[in-house]
Amino acid sequence: MAPILLNCMGNEHNEYIKQQVQVKNPYLGTMEEDILYHFSLSTRTHNLPEMFGDIKFVCVGGSANRMKAFAQFIHHELKLPGNPEEIKDICDGTDRYCMYKVGPVLSISHGMGVPSISIMLHELIKLLHHAQCRDVILFRLGTSGGVGLAPGTVVITEKAVDYSFRPQFEQVVLGKVITRSTELDKGVSSELLQCSTELENLPTVIGNTLCTHDFYEGQGRLDGALCSFSHEEKLEYLRKAFEAGVRNIEMESTVFAAMCRVCGVKAAVVCVALLNRFDGDQITSSHDVLVEYQQRPQILVSHFIKKRLGILA
Amino acid sequence: MAPILLNCMGNEHNEYIKQQVQVKNPYLGTMEEDILYHFSLSTRTHNLPEMFGDIKFVCVGGSANRMKAFAQFIHHELKLPGNPEEIKDICDGTDRYCMYKVGPVLSISHGMGVPSISIMLHELIKLLHHAQCRDVILFRLGTSGGVGLAPGTVVITEKAVDYSFRPQFEQVVLGKVITRSTELDKGVSSELLQCSTELENLPTVIGNTLCTHDFYEGQGRLDGALCSFSHEEKLEYLRKAFEAGVRNIEMESTVFAAMCRVCGVKAAVVCVALLNRFDGDQITSSHDVLVEYQQRPQILVSHFIKKRLGILA
Repeated sequence: MAPILLNCMGNEHNEYIKQQVQVKNPYLGTMEEDILYHFSLSTRTHNLPEMFGDIKFVCVGGSANRMKAFAQFIHHELKLPGNPEEIKDICDGTDRYCMYKVGPVLSISHGMGVPSISIMLHELIKLLHHAQCRDVILFRLGTSGGVGLAPGTVVITEKAVDYSFRPQFEQVVLGKVITRSTELDKGVSSELLQCSTELENLPTVIGNTLCTHDFYEGQGRLDGALCSFSHEEKLEYLRKAFEAGVRNIEMESTVFAAMCRVCGVKAAVVCVALLNRFDGDQITSSHDVLVEYQQRPQILVSHFIKKRLGILA
Repeated sequence: MAPILLNCMGNEHNEYIKQQVQVKNPYLGTMEEDILYHFSLSTRTHNLPEMFGDIKFVCVGGSANRMKAFAQFIHHELKLPGNPEEIKDICDGTDRYCMYKVGPVLSISHGMGVPSISIMLHELIKLLHHAQCRDVILFRLGTSGGVGLAPGTVVITEKAVDYSFRPQFEQVVLGKVITRSTELDKGVSSELLQCSTELENLPTVIGNTLCTHDFYEGQGRLDGALCSFSHEEKLEYLRKAFEAGVRNIEMESTVFAAMCRVCGVKAAVVCVALLNRFDGDQITSSHDVLVEYQQRPQILVSHFIKKRLGILA
């Protein structure tokens, strides 16, 4: 019976390991201390399992103010004790990122662009690993330009695609370019879409998300300091994107999807479109309208979290 | 005589235009309003020539706190009236970047990575253009990893190079990759090196700066969430970099050099090395030591500005 038992235990062990956040670095286990420099946290100075061991949902977004507002919002929605106004930035030893913990939810800012979110993700994945977190779902809540969508529409990303509309992320490792898949978790995306139907005033679609490394030339804007193409060439690029299933454009989704996939973390990208890029380049909506739009991904993900926690009926 | 006069005037006109910050976008002149979205400024709501017309030096760096500290430092160094503690963030309508004006000096944060600084540079160059600024010099004051240098050494960038040590920046425009030169202004670099010899406790070298899009795998760190190479392979990459003249590694210099060059702005990159990457990956120096290191580029550039303004003897 021994081999069968061993096999059975092996499977259970694998299943257990699968649910953990997996770092893919043989050196980490050999380090006496791991300084998460851009969080101003360390395994020596902080008890990460105690601080973060109960985390089940991590929500990240570009703007520090927006991620603080989300932390206060989810605090209210989860009906947690204490004053949400007094919420404390865990990373207050640095201004690179901000981080708030609200019950099982972690809210973190990541700045703009692939390199900025990638530094944050390396340190977040290590943090979740050191803290022995399990069954974590990671959400990016962002803003984006819509492609053929009315402003205010929320896009759940099916595939994050590069400038040629391929679902891949090119990473340079020691001077060599390698390619990683950017597929996201289909189950979480479907569940989010279902959530959107249960909410009012939350127009939502599933579509591909184009991730660029530049806001102006890379996204075909005519209003940057540099522009070497015509209005018609811009529209042609947007039309090609639309035909490839792209419904919005932002600047972080490919590396987010790729790293979460490699590390075995279920992940979703939920961005609101602030404008329809077929109609223009500048973001001209009023401050109040933009604030309302930016709350929509937060409301959707909050609904998802409440359902998962059994707080809703 | 008419053709000669015309020719002469043409040259003078060219000379005049050369000193201005040049946007390279035929559409900008046709726009009724230009919203600099990530600065929360606009040509309709703000009098940009009045606010910024006298700017001669723009200093940019990743961290918002550091660029506020620099603004307060240069306020003190230029012996300007008023309380430097009460300095106001011009971009307080947004948390994407912060911006401080101190006499002829503008201090702006740009976040981490090429995409983040590129958004800021597009809007900065448009701002300087709208404000009709002339003879502007742009400095990036940053932190970096040293390659074969003692921690605390300041590196003035000779050439900003990509992951293959080429002095070029690859920009995607409407799905096509184009290449731009990343040469910086030799005159400003030499002048900065001369300044360093006039200051105490400011070890400074000129060398190439490797610009990567990733802090961990891209820079050969063994302490990220992902690592697929050996310690020896890491050292080999660093040795190759050193042989190619690289003395430090950061994440913004190529696009900074490329955009300044295209727009006719004299520019320099001045970064302090926080560690020697041949000796390790983690930044283990104490907070106080790191703060002192980060002041070094500020002291050097401040000295340059004071000399240019004739404040020093």
